[in-house]
Amino acid sequence: MADMKLYDMKRAPNPRRVRIFLAEKGIEVPMVEVDIVSGENRAPEFLATNPRGTLPVLQLDDGTLIDESMAICRYFEARHPDPPLFGRDPLEQAKVEQWQRRIELDGLYNVAGIFRNTAPHLAERAAPGAAPDMKQIPELAERSRALLPGFFRMVESQLADQEYVAGGNYSVADITLFCTIGFARWVDVGIPDDAPNLQRWNAAMMQRPSAKA
Amino acid sequence: MADMKLYDMKRAPNPRRVRIFLAEKGIEVPMVEVDIVSGENRAPEFLATNPRGTLPVLQLDDGTLIDESMAICRYFEARHPDPPLFGRDPLEQAKVEQWQRRIELDGLYNVAGIFRNTAPHLAERAAPGAAPDMKQIPELAERSRALLPGFFRMVESQLADQEYVAGGNYSVADITLFCTIGFARWVDVGIPDDAPNLQRWNAAMMQRPSAKA
Repeated sequence: MADMKLYDMKRAPNPRRVRIFLAEKGIEVPMVEVDIVSGENRAPEFLATNPRGTLPVLQLDDGTLIDESMAICRYFEARHPDPPLFGRDPLEQAKVEQWQRRIELDGLYNVAGIFRNTAPHLAERAAPGAAPDMKQIPELAERSRALLPGFFRMVESQLADQEYVAGGNYSVADITLFCTIGFARWVDVGIPDDAPNLQRWNAAMMQRPSAKA
Repeated sequence: MADMKLYDMKRAPNPRRVRIFLAEKGIEVPMVEVDIVSGENRAPEFLATNPRGTLPVLQLDDGTLIDESMAICRYFEARHPDPPLFGRDPLEQAKVEQWQRRIELDGLYNVAGIFRNTAPHLAERAAPGAAPDMKQIPELAERSRALLPGFFRMVESQLADQEYVAGGNYSVADITLFCTIGFARWVDVGIPDDAPNLQRWNAAMMQRPSAKA
């Protein structure tokens, strides 16, 4: 893997999804840190790598670039199928995708909606990556916050019967949920007290070596 | 497929993605129409099928339920691999997912952001499915509209070199783009005049029998 590298940002939630995925697969890829806070992702050098200005981006040995966290994870899943993290048979593959999407749409994107519309350093760039400057919308942060309790009830209910969020096997949906919960702390949202199954699951996730990735 | 059925809504963009996918695979599934406009998706009967109140939902022969369009499509991809619509090798699989996500995040969700925050019948329920009642946010509709030109430039540029949006083969990313463009007409957004490649691509998509699904 001479030239393969991952453009990364240690603190950001989406790159973290990929790092945990790689750790679970036992794959090592050199990382290049790009600082979103100082605007390095909107500088010409990085925009030549990814015109959308988002992270993470994977560069392959031949220079091919892949952006979007789940596209990068699917590349490694296809190249290194073991352990399978996107499901083992048609139904499990569907359930992993279903839970992945539910967690993204109802959880991750609402946490992002709070963060991007309240963080002081994003006052003029509430849209992600290299999108045009956009002012924050306080009502959107409020709406996003109001939608999170339903998200927590959904995953709490699912984890009452299941060891992992998509069923009996650990999957990329657990990674997305774990990173969503970590990201939620940035906006002062913790796991609700009345969600013991989610608390139990989160404690188990914290014990996995990949949690430190 | 005795009891398999798809809970569908003919006019809605996400169910349409699945119908086109099935048509491209040559798979026939009985459809059950659920009317979102009259609130049938928020009635107790449908919420027993999908507590999130979103469409489409696939019911398998044994009663198992799968929601989220891409989860349903991936189920059929795994069961009926030919023709492959999620990519043929690791790199193509990654590129299909990359373009799928780019089109969803930069295109489909912004069109939805305009529609849900301006349509008169959604004045009190701007959040999708069975989410709690939420008032529309006019500034969010404006921001979503302001982000669409960048989306069109991105796909126009990609289609200058490629027959299909993810590369040389037709894929689910083309389906998502096609449904996004159809949905954009609901909010009076057409393909820009200065996007000849996208115009050419869209005309080719309209010629496929699946366009009527």
